[in-house]
Amino acid sequence: MVQRIWNFSSGPAVLPESVLEEAGKNLLSLGNSGIGILEHSHRGKAFLAVYHETEALLREVGGIPSNYRVLFLQGGASSQFFQIPMNFLGPNRTADYLITGAWSEKAIEEAAPFGGTHIACSSGDRNFSYIPHECVWSSNPIYAHYTSNNTIFGTQWACLPPVPDAVDLICDASSDIFSRPVDVSRHAMIYAGAQKNLGPAGVTLVIIREDLVECGSTTLPTMLQYRTHVKNESMYNTPPTFAIYLMGLVLKWIKSSGGLAAIGETNRRKAQKLYTFLDQSLLFHPTAVADSRSLMNVTFVTGDAELDAKFCSAASASGFDGLKGHRSVGGMRASLYNAFPEAGVDALLEFLRNFERENARSQ
Amino acid sequence: MVQRIWNFSSGPAVLPESVLEEAGKNLLSLGNSGIGILEHSHRGKAFLAVYHETEALLREVGGIPSNYRVLFLQGGASSQFFQIPMNFLGPNRTADYLITGAWSEKAIEEAAPFGGTHIACSSGDRNFSYIPHECVWSSNPIYAHYTSNNTIFGTQWACLPPVPDAVDLICDASSDIFSRPVDVSRHAMIYAGAQKNLGPAGVTLVIIREDLVECGSTTLPTMLQYRTHVKNESMYNTPPTFAIYLMGLVLKWIKSSGGLAAIGETNRRKAQKLYTFLDQSLLFHPTAVADSRSLMNVTFVTGDAELDAKFCSAASASGFDGLKGHRSVGGMRASLYNAFPEAGVDALLEFLRNFERENARSQ
Repeated sequence: MVQRIWNFSSGPAVLPESVLEEAGKNLLSLGNSGIGILEHSHRGKAFLAVYHETEALLREVGGIPSNYRVLFLQGGASSQFFQIPMNFLGPNRTADYLITGAWSEKAIEEAAPFGGTHIACSSGDRNFSYIPHECVWSSNPIYAHYTSNNTIFGTQWACLPPVPDAVDLICDASSDIFSRPVDVSRHAMIYAGAQKNLGPAGVTLVIIREDLVECGSTTLPTMLQYRTHVKNESMYNTPPTFAIYLMGLVLKWIKSSGGLAAIGETNRRKAQKLYTFLDQSLLFHPTAVADSRSLMNVTFVTGDAELDAKFCSAASASGFDGLKGHRSVGGMRASLYNAFPEAGVDALLEFLRNFERENARSQ
Repeated sequence: MVQRIWNFSSGPAVLPESVLEEAGKNLLSLGNSGIGILEHSHRGKAFLAVYHETEALLREVGGIPSNYRVLFLQGGASSQFFQIPMNFLGPNRTADYLITGAWSEKAIEEAAPFGGTHIACSSGDRNFSYIPHECVWSSNPIYAHYTSNNTIFGTQWACLPPVPDAVDLICDASSDIFSRPVDVSRHAMIYAGAQKNLGPAGVTLVIIREDLVECGSTTLPTMLQYRTHVKNESMYNTPPTFAIYLMGLVLKWIKSSGGLAAIGETNRRKAQKLYTFLDQSLLFHPTAVADSRSLMNVTFVTGDAELDAKFCSAASASGFDGLKGHRSVGGMRASLYNAFPEAGVDALLEFLRNFERENARSQ
């Protein structure tokens, strides 16, 4: 058995070992069925049981109200970027976008061809290092769209954006979905690629309020209408069965870990340990403004690109993988999704302290 | 270890045991990386090696010429149904469709909103039980689209449709991709959901001639333009990494089994054994016309719905799963994709003979 290393990847990302072990046991035979989980028909009893259990767990763990539908789609958040405005925005309406990073920018770019777009706020003036406190809304937006966590820039909305109650709020939660309790009822729609907190790459979770579904255009290709997937319970075409199965295992793990409240507390503690160190470090500095910091992606720099590279290289050699920051920020990024163990944070802290000591001494 | 049963599912379908075993070994650590295959960043060296190996195997095993691009997309064939006409068909052009089953019908339905559509042939007059011999083409079709194998109706094009050389031929090969040698160069595009012959559900293989890519509309959402995925080598967004990995393992298995020529020969022998029995059976009858029969999905009936149900029930109790036919045809369907073992066909034959004997005696 190969020793597992600390995987700080921003996604696809670390999964709970118990989930991987359970999946491994079911590759050749799902339970006693004699057919592996990858091989079961999506319309057979065995997979339908997996499907319904995963949906029930999502509803239970996520506190999803009964007037919301849960869909398992494909194509990632990038497909939702156009599918949302294609369905809901028209040439005579305006959608408001809260711009807090590269993904928000892509979302508004994909919306523009379908109708009016309005930037309610943006932190682009300081390389997206903060979450804006104030928004200016358009007069009657069809919806407001925000990115709850900004993977690249290491910022996160600590609470909901200050959107007027009457406005339908849509959230791209790809990088912090189910990492803390969420008030689904304050949203019209929440969507997320699963590959950070909920499972493997290849399935997009969509939580959508029932009445919104029917607001969608009826002239789109069948696959692009949300109602198609609502009506067919995500089985209009063959769904990504294994990804749904694995999401179910991850949800069981979240539930057994105490649910979102407990997971959220652990995530806060993990990130806080790093930020506390970074705030007093003489060598490393966090890049995000204090009140805007992400609990999922901790971004930091030394201020010296060569030293950053030396650190990443040394870290990698010591079994800390995926710490290189995105080129838009540079430096380092430690992604600490749900399944990233607290012991890995402690190990990184020790490594950071040692590196700081050695490199402070040599300077 | 649970005993595996004979899985005749029409898809997702049986995979080679050696592939499942290999995948199982890499769930907690891909090779010696210390990070499981599901957890590796799609942009990291380890996964990029998997990606490039899978593409190289596709090119080698499938004999894909260098002027074709290989894409790993999401959303299944159902998404290609609209994406193809959305990219290539316009209001002043006509696309020709060869209608040989339910999937061809869905494909032409999704094309209609984008431009002219013309039915070059159809076997709808006899419940799609045959492959038409003759086509009538429109004057200058932008492309011609056919479904190489009809999963539901158990028919398959034995050779290419008689399309004029100048017409770009597009093939939905979802249920027979890489089940026999294919002349890629005679096609402008071949696409297939992987979940029958190539891997798990959740990845769509697209093989597309380079010059066609640039014919696509430039005003579509970024994710819906083929050029986006060509330019970014299927990594514009996070690809379904595990499905791509598994496809690579299946391709290695195909290669080690002798490639498409050998696989095709085995598939022919497997199907022929069943058809030979069915043609002389006093109880069971194949539903597809002899020259149109699928090597992938063998459809048959007793002619008595109650007896069909009795057979399916008895078969299921004896470890033959997934034999119930699609409601459009009724009766039984034995799906014999690449990974379905010949021993399973022999076992089914014995079961069919016994059932015939017992039920002939009692009649």
